[in-house]
Amino acid sequence: MSHFAERLNHIAPFHVMELLARAKALQADGHDVIHMEIGEPDFTTPATIVEAGIAALQSGKTGYSPALGIPELREAISQFYKDKFGVNVPARRIVVTAGASGALMLALGALVSSGSEVLLTDPGYPCNRHFVRTLEGTPINIPVGPDSKYQLTVEDIAQYWTDKTVAALVASPANPTGTVLSQAEIQSLHQACAHKGGTLIVDEIYQGLTYGFEPQTALAISDDLFVINSFSKYFQMTGWRLGWMVVPDAYLDAVTRLAQNLFIAPPTPAQYAALAAFTPTTIEILESRRHIFAERKAALKPALLDIGFQIHADPQGAFYFYADCQHIAEDSYALAKNALEKAYVAITPGIDFGSHLASQHIRIAYTAETNILLAAAERLQKLIKQG
Amino acid sequence: MSHFAERLNHIAPFHVMELLARAKALQADGHDVIHMEIGEPDFTTPATIVEAGIAALQSGKTGYSPALGIPELREAISQFYKDKFGVNVPARRIVVTAGASGALMLALGALVSSGSEVLLTDPGYPCNRHFVRTLEGTPINIPVGPDSKYQLTVEDIAQYWTDKTVAALVASPANPTGTVLSQAEIQSLHQACAHKGGTLIVDEIYQGLTYGFEPQTALAISDDLFVINSFSKYFQMTGWRLGWMVVPDAYLDAVTRLAQNLFIAPPTPAQYAALAAFTPTTIEILESRRHIFAERKAALKPALLDIGFQIHADPQGAFYFYADCQHIAEDSYALAKNALEKAYVAITPGIDFGSHLASQHIRIAYTAETNILLAAAERLQKLIKQG
Ligand SMILES: Cc1ncc(COP(=O)(O)O)c(C=O)c1O
Ligand SMILES: Cc1ncc(COP(=O)(O)O)c(C=O)c1O
Repeated sequence: MSHFAERLNHIAPFHVMELLARAKALQADGHDVIHMEIGEPDFTTPATIVEAGIAALQSGKTGYSPALGIPELREAISQFYKDKFGVNVPARRIVVTAGASGALMLALGALVSSGSEVLLTDPGYPCNRHFVRTLEGTPINIPVGPDSKYQLTVEDIAQYWTDKTVAALVASPANPTGTVLSQAEIQSLHQACAHKGGTLIVDEIYQGLTYGFEPQTALAISDDLFVINSFSKYFQMTGWRLGWMVVPDAYLDAVTRLAQNLFIAPPTPAQYAALAAFTPTTIEILESRRHIFAERKAALKPALLDIGFQIHADPQGAFYFYADCQHIAEDSYALAKNALEKAYVAITPGIDFGSHLASQHIRIAYTAETNILLAAAERLQKLIKQG
Repeated sequence: MSHFAERLNHIAPFHVMELLARAKALQADGHDVIHMEIGEPDFTTPATIVEAGIAALQSGKTGYSPALGIPELREAISQFYKDKFGVNVPARRIVVTAGASGALMLALGALVSSGSEVLLTDPGYPCNRHFVRTLEGTPINIPVGPDSKYQLTVEDIAQYWTDKTVAALVASPANPTGTVLSQAEIQSLHQACAHKGGTLIVDEIYQGLTYGFEPQTALAISDDLFVINSFSKYFQMTGWRLGWMVVPDAYLDAVTRLAQNLFIAPPTPAQYAALAAFTPTTIEILESRRHIFAERKAALKPALLDIGFQIHADPQGAFYFYADCQHIAEDSYALAKNALEKAYVAITPGIDFGSHLASQHIRIAYTAETNILLAAAERLQKLIKQG
């Protein structure tokens, strides 16, 4: 009797939510669950940012902001590109959004018509394909593996691009794999897309979180691509729902109209808070946290390999291991369930990131203190040994 | 060369933004502009709510919340329906969103397939038709006038419903007209939609702002409709980007999947702040502000009629007059420009709300103190007299 949008046949739930609910039930029963399943830093927002948010609230910054964000923040982001990367990105092209989520909706909303195809990685951030579906486009989920560090290649562009394709979307560092595209690789992908008359979208949400080398931006390569970013991960502001995107000039008008109509504006107190995100004091806090992530990564990796997980491409960024568990378990979803029920360790099954070899992979987030991560590894070790 | 989504041909900018930019330029030049163009209360968020938001930030509530909102807020909203309207709405069916904007996207995302039609009023809230376009549906903009208080009627449903129609969307009180549907009218619209196998969506964003009688809810009539609401208007939290929606049980799973993927979650500090929105102290503040809106309305209306504006249907809610200016000006956009340039009064041209008789209507928001509103009326009076 009722109408359900046809797209709902293609929109998957987050399977990890079921595990999360079960984890909470176990905790309520007094079990000590270790959380390595959520795509969120365990740090709260730096105090400097929180204080700026509080000051904004106290001074009555509670009304709508301009649709593309307050000018001060757009300028601050522009300055950030100059200071950190030596790249000129005029504030005019910077669009402040409700998280990278809002940015993805706007970028794809400006590009995707009914039936348009968008090239994505499988595994990849699952919401991407659902944004495309929401816009009545067709996500093309390209199986990627260790050979290409789980990233798209120019060969993929050549093979999968059709006359319906409008864009390719990559993330660097990526979720769930943490792998990074080199500037040369981004350049070739950009050229390959441009050659086809399409657009490259680069999701740099994990930009600040690289280990062993300094972050980069695709904006150093070209002004003719969409760059997605966010205050969620490096800046540890997930709950504030604030991100941004850099838009090619030709799309500014389109993105403005979409932003006005779909969102009215991004959250105002969050924007004033984020003005404190680029100050030296805040950057110092964030860099020390980045250092902690690097240490955790170094400590946890050997422990995981010891258990029998395989990590085919070293994650150079984000805070995830995408681990092959084929020598440990028949099925990664069953493993995730087992780990939770018997070892009280929560991890995310591969199915949440696509379908390509999903049942032999899991994602493990190092979003807890090192000693807790190692305790989790020990629990998993025991669980696997017991069979 | 580049791809632009086809939908962009149908997505209009907010024309008032141009006027707003010009208003700011005039202000920068030292002119005293009176703002009656923005759909936003002039009050900042009540201190009780701000304080709850600050307390949340101080206690580290900066992470992602559950996709449908924190359980405490869903419970508080459920309790609000019980206390205020005597209606049972289980927290399970309450979905917290990024403003009514987020709610509209989710409701329509769950209903509208490519090519689906949605019945809307013209004039009406312009974003509605753009949400439908974004989802590749077809908005059916039904011309409405004073006869039906600018609202949809069962006759409209009978006339415009086709086998592609999935829903009708009404707002009560409405933007831009401020008119209210009676419970009996909502009941007939609901039945007419249900009879056609479709769904009624009722946008109650201006619910708390009625003058001369107590607010109502469509949820008293049926559980089988979508109700949109927001903390933006009555609760004066526009910049926080927080709203909610009540979903029929059958759509909960669909809406959950969409919410997880499109938004991850609504803003967290805002949700904790909103817990203070339903306390007696806050309600007292809000009710006194409602009283102020009622007084402004009573003071401004005769002044507008005096100038020669016609108000064909008395607005019983929201904070707008939708005024017919055919006896004053050739074209409402030109009038709005003139009013700004020569009288420093900012108002919104009809074109921002649709195309039906748009050029003979303007929207005037009473979002300034009474003496300022009356000063604006005087300036307009002079302007018109000068011709
Ligand atoms: C690759 C990637 N892009 C975008 C997002 C969206 O994040 P947000 O909307 O919080 O900025 C996420 C969140 O996990 C992500 O992993
Ligand atoms: C009728 C109506 N619905 C929805 C909205 C969206 O408001 P928000 O997203 O701030 O809750 C507005 C804003 O003006 C409106 O007038």
